[in-house]
Amino acid sequence: MGDTIGIAQHLLTRLQQLRLQTVFGVPGDFQLILIDEILKSGLKWAGSANELVAAYAADGYARINGIGAVVTTFGPGELSAVNGIAGAYSEFVPVVHIVGYPHRRAQQAGMILHHTLGDGKFGMFHEMSKHISCATTVLNDEKTAIEEIDRVLQAMLFHSRPVYIGIPMDMVNLKVPFTGPLSPLPALLDPSDEDDESAVVNLIINRIQSSSQFALIVDIGAARFRLLNAVNKLIDILSAPHFLTAMARTCINETHSCFGGLYGGELSDRSAKEYVEAADCVLKIGNYPTEGMTYNANVKRVLGRVLEFFESAPQPVSPRWQVPSPVRDVAPSPSLGKITFDWLLHRLSQFFCNGDLVVVETGSVSIGMTQVSFPEGVHAFTQTVWGSIGFATGSAVGAFTAALEQSEKFKRPILITGEGSMQMTIQALGDMLRFNLAPIIFVLNNDGYTCERVVNGRDQPYNDVATWNWQTMLESFGPNFMTRSYKAETVGDLDIVLDILSGGEFNGAQLVEVRLDKYDVPSSMSELAAKLRKPRK
Amino acid sequence: MGDTIGIAQHLLTRLQQLRLQTVFGVPGDFQLILIDEILKSGLKWAGSANELVAAYAADGYARINGIGAVVTTFGPGELSAVNGIAGAYSEFVPVVHIVGYPHRRAQQAGMILHHTLGDGKFGMFHEMSKHISCATTVLNDEKTAIEEIDRVLQAMLFHSRPVYIGIPMDMVNLKVPFTGPLSPLPALLDPSDEDDESAVVNLIINRIQSSSQFALIVDIGAARFRLLNAVNKLIDILSAPHFLTAMARTCINETHSCFGGLYGGELSDRSAKEYVEAADCVLKIGNYPTEGMTYNANVKRVLGRVLEFFESAPQPVSPRWQVPSPVRDVAPSPSLGKITFDWLLHRLSQFFCNGDLVVVETGSVSIGMTQVSFPEGVHAFTQTVWGSIGFATGSAVGAFTAALEQSEKFKRPILITGEGSMQMTIQALGDMLRFNLAPIIFVLNNDGYTCERVVNGRDQPYNDVATWNWQTMLESFGPNFMTRSYKAETVGDLDIVLDILSGGEFNGAQLVEVRLDKYDVPSSMSELAAKLRKPRK
Repeated sequence: MGDTIGIAQHLLTRLQQLRLQTVFGVPGDFQLILIDEILKSGLKWAGSANELVAAYAADGYARINGIGAVVTTFGPGELSAVNGIAGAYSEFVPVVHIVGYPHRRAQQAGMILHHTLGDGKFGMFHEMSKHISCATTVLNDEKTAIEEIDRVLQAMLFHSRPVYIGIPMDMVNLKVPFTGPLSPLPALLDPSDEDDESAVVNLIINRIQSSSQFALIVDIGAARFRLLNAVNKLIDILSAPHFLTAMARTCINETHSCFGGLYGGELSDRSAKEYVEAADCVLKIGNYPTEGMTYNANVKRVLGRVLEFFESAPQPVSPRWQVPSPVRDVAPSPSLGKITFDWLLHRLSQFFCNGDLVVVETGSVSIGMTQVSFPEGVHAFTQTVWGSIGFATGSAVGAFTAALEQSEKFKRPILITGEGSMQMTIQALGDMLRFNLAPIIFVLNNDGYTCERVVNGRDQPYNDVATWNWQTMLESFGPNFMTRSYKAETVGDLDIVLDILSGGEFNGAQLVEVRLDKYDVPSSMSELAAKLRKPRK
Repeated sequence: MGDTIGIAQHLLTRLQQLRLQTVFGVPGDFQLILIDEILKSGLKWAGSANELVAAYAADGYARINGIGAVVTTFGPGELSAVNGIAGAYSEFVPVVHIVGYPHRRAQQAGMILHHTLGDGKFGMFHEMSKHISCATTVLNDEKTAIEEIDRVLQAMLFHSRPVYIGIPMDMVNLKVPFTGPLSPLPALLDPSDEDDESAVVNLIINRIQSSSQFALIVDIGAARFRLLNAVNKLIDILSAPHFLTAMARTCINETHSCFGGLYGGELSDRSAKEYVEAADCVLKIGNYPTEGMTYNANVKRVLGRVLEFFESAPQPVSPRWQVPSPVRDVAPSPSLGKITFDWLLHRLSQFFCNGDLVVVETGSVSIGMTQVSFPEGVHAFTQTVWGSIGFATGSAVGAFTAALEQSEKFKRPILITGEGSMQMTIQALGDMLRFNLAPIIFVLNNDGYTCERVVNGRDQPYNDVATWNWQTMLESFGPNFMTRSYKAETVGDLDIVLDILSGGEFNGAQLVEVRLDKYDVPSSMSELAAKLRKPRK
């Protein structure tokens, strides 16, 4: 390294240190030269058809890769992305949103530029993004640019949430003093109070040791804050009955002999609910909304010390606790007739196999997934809290890109969505084809927003969506690629299609339209709706 | 009217008073019961495939109808719409953004709901929207709800800009005291200082009377603030040489004998530029960024008084000023070969006719349109300042809906866009079909963001877009509708297609893919780019 470094070059080097390989985004005249630098850096540029898809893609990429990045232009571009960024904020996904700003001279002169509100001001979009970012900066000062970049990236890693970096055009290639080599970003850690930390550690150890019915609940924070290795070890050492929240599904192997099923409010397995609520010691790790601290003590350190204690303590010969068997995956009686949602879920359970990456749309599909058992080595996610329909199709672009970069781990990229949801972000289909992601896409076509029909307006026209031809979509969005489309109207149809897919002989993109009745929802969803309708005490 | 009124009912009644007939939006569980009320009110509900399209549609509808409305859900829905709302703010388009909020009880309890950031807070999206709205309210208090609705709607009309109204689920049907009947919203007017107003009026009259080379420039504010009737009268009485900015095109008849062409910075007709810059009196009406005041005097009142003076003053027998002929629409020599952008624009000039509503995408097409002459009775718009690509396709949904409601005035709905732009909001195609808008859509397919190639990265991969099959798009997005697709690769092809379209025998949706060279831009654009590249003094 020399004595100076370009500002964009520093940012991109940092992202590469954090194992980013692909940047999503849409070009615009304020960031074209930034994208030139991205290409020079060796990072891959994945241009999406629109910014919302690009933001979702960065989120999906981050869920698989660790972090994600999306580049948009000042004004229209960045505002199109905010829903995606807010979702990442809500769900603790570390994404850096890089926004190409106008030249500093234009900003200082208060010029009325295109892509502005016409008032000669440039600060309002940054202000808007502060509400959905854990740290933000606009690099208007070359004296602080390097440390500002490091500050916000550290915040992103520490909070596991999105950050915002604005780069004026004239700052991209500006060289600033820098004495290399670039050491990795030092990790921030919440300071533990020494006494409090010891007290928490001892409390946990004592409670576990004296427990006659122990439950370990793993929530999404365990994945986001990189605690899964420790959690898995603790489970093995203790033979601990453990449970996953809906948000944390597949974060740990669901075929483990001590896995007790799903636990979390109304979406629990009945057996899990009974066990957990009768337990005399419940340890929940990575609770949503999540943070790195508990009782003035750093969770990562506390967990490390608890694990250390049990690793060195003598282990009982046989497991101390009886694990409840998850009651799930009851197969509805098969027939050659119409496909029911419950049957479909059961059938997908059998279809999934080791190496699958399954992106699940929010709504009736994600709730229905609580009925599905995932084999070992299947990784699945959905957008549980933010719940923006269209997310799955967009984030699949990023998740499948990351999966391709980790092809030793991921074999089949699978998207499961509804037709109303997919309409939101249909252009992502073009991206999936163009990036050669070879997805298997299940479009559950049930003539509208069935998820909303359950809530209100069962037959109101606002719950209908436009009728599209799902059989010609792959041709429309990727005429130059090898693709196959299928339509399953009956149980028999779907059996045949799934057998073909399982055969794995075709390597291109495949879309399976599954026809469902417009009022049919998974049992888990109708039960949930009935519970929510009950008046609260 | 009784003694009480439902809160939503009041809002919807107000919108109907303002001649709104159609509400755009996307359903979501926080506003389903609001949409029930919309249907009951007699307003039409136009559900879009996503919220950005719905927001654009409301903008396009407002540009034709006067005001527009879009309904979204709290969180993901409203954030997907903000780019569209910001564009309306930038371009002074009055749109009301109605957002379905969670039940007040859930808000007060700080519940961690879906569609939130998971922090039990509910104010941040309202804060974000304040930056792109001229007035906002969340109707959390039934005692002030009615006056709050009226306050923000008045602000929308006064500033001709978007407003934001949040309605918690439990407020929709809440009855509040009200003594009807509902009189129209009193118009707000900037107060004029009596003396200043007279001084401005006299100054204008004197300067016009003594002018030997007078120029009247009409900018977009003249349309937005409803001054066009007065402007047209003034033009006729004075035989005033008048000019339009690019943003104000077709706001007044461009075939008037006193029309001198386009004037506005680098996008002026040469003849217009010469005339205006040599004029000894230039009166600009409705300057962008626009407001209702000039020198402490209300523009509408000033204009009224100036008009009144000239209406009663004796008129000269012959026009006092010589109008420059706009130099434009030079036909490139025709051939049977490849279609050039310049030739296409020339050919479209001939194709347009009275009753056309032409929605033009921002970028090379909108700049190219400065080369096109519009016959009388053609109405065209683009998004000049905000410049969000994808806008045209989305706003066409709303503009064409308004045109259908004014079918005595508008005969042919025409959309002109590029393929990269249309990819941004392609789902709007499904809406256009579903709403039976029978559009004529020109997709200028030039293999990428040609507009960006001129700026930077002529051959960089980031300026390529995915290759889609434009010939199957209508089938994919509207399999149940009568549609026709055409592809024009040569001048001869396009002549044939335009003749068919002019014949008007087919009433369904029609899409014309026009193949252009990936580097070809209108002359006006290459000239502009050359001018902008010159170093400024």
